[in-house]
Amino acid sequence: MATRCWARALGQVNCQLRARTSTNLWHANAKCTSSPKSLFTRNWSSSSKRSTSPPLPPPKEKPTRSKLSRVVTVARWSAIAGASCVASVLFIGGAIFLHDAFTYTDRHVERVPVNPLALHPENGGPKDLPIARVLVGDEEDEVNKQLSQKPKLVIIGGGWGAMGVLKTLQSGEYHVTVISPETFTTFTPLLPSAAVGTVQIRSLIEPLRKIVARVHGHYICGKAVDLVMSEQLVEVELNDTDGAKRNIYVPYDKLIIACGSTSTTHGVTGLEHSFQLKTISDAQAIRRRIADNFEIASLPTTSPEERKRLLSFVICGGGPTGVETAAEIYDLCQEDILNYYPKLCREEVSINVIQSREHILNTYNEAISNYAEARFKRDDVNVITNARVKEITKDGIIYTSKGSDKTLEDQFIPANFVLWSTGIAMSPFSHRVSTLLPNQVHFKAIETDAHLRVKGAPLGTVYAVGDASVLETNIVGHLLQLVDEADRNQDGKIDIEEWRIMVAQIKKRIPMAQKHLEKIRDLFQRYDTDKDDSLNLNELALLLQEISSKISPLPATAQVAEQQGKYLGSKLSKLARQREILAANGIPATDEAVAKPFKYTHLGSLAYIGNAAVFDFGNKSFMGGLAAMYAWRVVYWSEQVSMRTRALIMFDWIIRGIWGRDLSRL
Amino acid sequence: MATRCWARALGQVNCQLRARTSTNLWHANAKCTSSPKSLFTRNWSSSSKRSTSPPLPPPKEKPTRSKLSRVVTVARWSAIAGASCVASVLFIGGAIFLHDAFTYTDRHVERVPVNPLALHPENGGPKDLPIARVLVGDEEDEVNKQLSQKPKLVIIGGGWGAMGVLKTLQSGEYHVTVISPETFTTFTPLLPSAAVGTVQIRSLIEPLRKIVARVHGHYICGKAVDLVMSEQLVEVELNDTDGAKRNIYVPYDKLIIACGSTSTTHGVTGLEHSFQLKTISDAQAIRRRIADNFEIASLPTTSPEERKRLLSFVICGGGPTGVETAAEIYDLCQEDILNYYPKLCREEVSINVIQSREHILNTYNEAISNYAEARFKRDDVNVITNARVKEITKDGIIYTSKGSDKTLEDQFIPANFVLWSTGIAMSPFSHRVSTLLPNQVHFKAIETDAHLRVKGAPLGTVYAVGDASVLETNIVGHLLQLVDEADRNQDGKIDIEEWRIMVAQIKKRIPMAQKHLEKIRDLFQRYDTDKDDSLNLNELALLLQEISSKISPLPATAQVAEQQGKYLGSKLSKLARQREILAANGIPATDEAVAKPFKYTHLGSLAYIGNAAVFDFGNKSFMGGLAAMYAWRVVYWSEQVSMRTRALIMFDWIIRGIWGRDLSRL
Repeated sequence: MATRCWARALGQVNCQLRARTSTNLWHANAKCTSSPKSLFTRNWSSSSKRSTSPPLPPPKEKPTRSKLSRVVTVARWSAIAGASCVASVLFIGGAIFLHDAFTYTDRHVERVPVNPLALHPENGGPKDLPIARVLVGDEEDEVNKQLSQKPKLVIIGGGWGAMGVLKTLQSGEYHVTVISPETFTTFTPLLPSAAVGTVQIRSLIEPLRKIVARVHGHYICGKAVDLVMSEQLVEVELNDTDGAKRNIYVPYDKLIIACGSTSTTHGVTGLEHSFQLKTISDAQAIRRRIADNFEIASLPTTSPEERKRLLSFVICGGGPTGVETAAEIYDLCQEDILNYYPKLCREEVSINVIQSREHILNTYNEAISNYAEARFKRDDVNVITNARVKEITKDGIIYTSKGSDKTLEDQFIPANFVLWSTGIAMSPFSHRVSTLLPNQVHFKAIETDAHLRVKGAPLGTVYAVGDASVLETNIVGHLLQLVDEADRNQDGKIDIEEWRIMVAQIKKRIPMAQKHLEKIRDLFQRYDTDKDDSLNLNELALLLQEISSKISPLPATAQVAEQQGKYLGSKLSKLARQREILAANGIPATDEAVAKPFKYTHLGSLAYIGNAAVFDFGNKSFMGGLAAMYAWRVVYWSEQVSMRTRALIMFDWIIRGIWGRDLSRL
Repeated sequence: MATRCWARALGQVNCQLRARTSTNLWHANAKCTSSPKSLFTRNWSSSSKRSTSPPLPPPKEKPTRSKLSRVVTVARWSAIAGASCVASVLFIGGAIFLHDAFTYTDRHVERVPVNPLALHPENGGPKDLPIARVLVGDEEDEVNKQLSQKPKLVIIGGGWGAMGVLKTLQSGEYHVTVISPETFTTFTPLLPSAAVGTVQIRSLIEPLRKIVARVHGHYICGKAVDLVMSEQLVEVELNDTDGAKRNIYVPYDKLIIACGSTSTTHGVTGLEHSFQLKTISDAQAIRRRIADNFEIASLPTTSPEERKRLLSFVICGGGPTGVETAAEIYDLCQEDILNYYPKLCREEVSINVIQSREHILNTYNEAISNYAEARFKRDDVNVITNARVKEITKDGIIYTSKGSDKTLEDQFIPANFVLWSTGIAMSPFSHRVSTLLPNQVHFKAIETDAHLRVKGAPLGTVYAVGDASVLETNIVGHLLQLVDEADRNQDGKIDIEEWRIMVAQIKKRIPMAQKHLEKIRDLFQRYDTDKDDSLNLNELALLLQEISSKISPLPATAQVAEQQGKYLGSKLSKLARQREILAANGIPATDEAVAKPFKYTHLGSLAYIGNAAVFDFGNKSFMGGLAAMYAWRVVYWSEQVSMRTRALIMFDWIIRGIWGRDLSRL
């Protein structure tokens, strides 16, 4: 810019000088020559045609410019482009630097006000444990002091569900406490990338304390283990300094269970020899194991059989996590192992995906499954379908598949890395809550109503979201109540008009039943077996049961958890804001008074399959190589919980591109 | 840039148009008006003075420009600056993106040639273990095949010494193998920063495989445990897949011991309750403990006494590592803890540095010590000098210091974090080597001659560098040989001329004695006790002993290790290159034939002391606040082992500036 500025300034000065010189000369000549016209003509023509030799030196800019202008322009613009690139980088760098210089503070804190009850809590509850009624930071400033008077909202867990709640919850309405054994939230969809070092493990996490800070909330590092609904207390297990456990009670007015799930075992033995990929520590352990496998395989004294076993990677489960992990391991081998380890190690690598269904990615549409399978075939990733894992041993994995003669045969793959990624099961806390409530019968998660309230718990106090919860699909349970509401003529039967009312009620209670209730008259006629133009209780029970069985529960994905969390966060904010208005009008402050039931909007599924990606938007699908991969990155990048992790992940991708993955074993 | 281009182009077109219009008008008018002069005058004056109303509209550019030019120019340049900033970022981003798109490869490897001996090594050596004579990758391509015929250079360790060797060693001269239990090299000076999360732990490490790739070297993940010098074999302990140990022999032609040191205990008990800060895992453990301390201190059920203990940090040792760790913990508290933890936690923090000498940073010059102490006083970092640690317990630390009545008193500081950083001791492998060689008597490290050859080992086969080694300072051991060389007249005495020769010989053997041998005649006269103008053996022994005692050994710093490594790497390269020439001339290929003895050049010491830094350049020193801190960063940044870690560390500093430290506990 500076160069250009000088050039321009010089140009202007030249121009003015020329103009003045000409004028002065003219006046000077006007005084001493007889014919001003002749001079003018001569002068003018000299500069426009250069045909005559003028008595005065002609202005030189014009001809020079027309001859050299192109070269000069190109050179000038190149210089300007380079200079502005450097200047921009320096400018941005300078701004960052300047900002940095103001981040070092000398603040002092003294005499922080603390409620004595926070230092010496009273005991209570059924187990006579300390009850954390007041937290250490509750009176440290005005904001916290005010908040400590608000209803206590306790969130168990720090995953997608909890993040959803905290994103939409308005500050100032609740005294928020998050309880989680991990001090951070994890961006789970990129765990397969982190497991091989494509992105750093720390790039996927954001401290919970930073996230709760927005709502001036609190964080307790502990694990919820029990619930006392009668006294509204959560029992939390804390780690003490010497590794011992200590339990306390945390009181709540509203409780959100968002503690996620564990993996299902499917009755397979030897799972202790396998890895899971649900948490950051799982990703760390996998990264360590993969590094170890390659290091030991590179040793000169490792036998060829052992080397083959060390470099055999088996993934049980052909869902997105399994497929992405297989793809990431393949990438690691192609882009890094090949460059820095003995080439024999790359040659001996085998990656196997064992899937119980006919295709991998079987929840996606068929074209996607086929594309992924073709891609894996090209990449020498071995896809074994229609196979059931029987046992995982120290040395490998045994699975059953149909042989050529259609009989079941046991197969063995030697391996030193087995990933178990095949569906979810209840976490210990969910299980505990489930046993406390007699009407909770679901074996995978805590059942909630359409308002995400835990069924059977005191209304409006306990909620559950994400993997920990499942929306009720059983309409039959509501039968008598539905009949009560719909049977206008009180004849104990439901005619077609009453059936319309009942359908509206069902849709309100179980929104997921909606698409199975579209043909109202058809259903009525089909189940009216005695053809009396009305449905009696038996006919209704059968109808509702069949509809219930058709409803597929929401998948256990981050998308569902986040939407549920967001729904709950905004509902609870609304509830708090409208409490007084509702009370003034004599309306009970229930969830129904402020919000519709939860409704899930599927935004599509995606998966990375090794320098390619697939997108499933329900009726549309999109798959492809690098372009799709970059699109996949953009989606995950935009989904990040903070700008910090966005910067970190972007930087990790750049670093991988320039220098490859970090192969260090930590 | 585009904007400017258009503006410029338009300007030129305007200019040309004006010129042509004027000329045409002139000619037109010349034909139809009687007085061309009057027209010209009128026209000219109208544009210069605008006093008369001309029959033709005057050119409008000039006056507009002079009025609006400034505003337009400023706006234009602002737009250009903004646009070029955006364009530059897009350009750089695009370049990175484009590069990234070409890093995904589909290469395949098949039938990699492997020597059968690499797959099934023969046993041998005193313990009949497998000997890794050929490595798995030794025949995979032409380069490796050629290198496998070269002398085997084995480096034990992957720290500063090894890095120095690998930096200067020329590719193609040796078959290089690095043996280290850690798969990476660590930038140790920033460990205190990594321990609190100012920089990420992974930003300090670079995989050894990437570093040895430059010289087409190999890496074995294992721990050297023994040495068979007669058969030139290193015994290496490997970790097997099931965690069991397996030992093998690695043969060498030249061996470099660069395995570093451990911490000295100073006879203090209870060190198992303390932390060290020498490795990446130390930094990880410290980071975890600090996070735990703050988390537990934030819990509502932690007693006030326990909270005080949890937030009491004790650092034993007032050297640079101790001081920097104290400073980094202080920074963490000020910049992050204060923002995200209950304020009470910040208030209760106490940081204590226990130093046995009178001042912290006692190896630096006095002004620096005073500055650091003043700084720590201001920051409430408690410096306890003249104190000796007696015992470290589970709950704190007991030290002895002089009370007011000058008697020794035991003091107790409750603490849940104690850092032990008080000097070095021999690593197990160094100790083993030391016991194998009867003339090795140094208790802290392996003694080498001035050419870094391990004393007592077969000449030119075993070298030692860095913390694992110490240069010999004992001149008396060379007495008889020195007399032999210097006593020209064979009278068993050394006269002044012979003394001159002897001094030259001593300087060659023990370069560190140089500055104590400057006053040749003075020394001669002082120790010539019988005044016979010559030194007999007794007088000489006394003289040499006193000089030896004056030589202070090189400090155990990264700087020394790296310089020694670089010296050794370039010497070994030279030796390999000149071997044939030397042999042709009948000169034995010893170290003396190609290189001078090692000489250390002190470049200065520096330390970070909490948003301030100190520099000690021997006679000059420099200390100050933020400016010095940035200078300290620049020095460490430039010292990085790779551009990758440079980018990572720079990015970490930026991230800290914008979003603070990552407080997650992993």
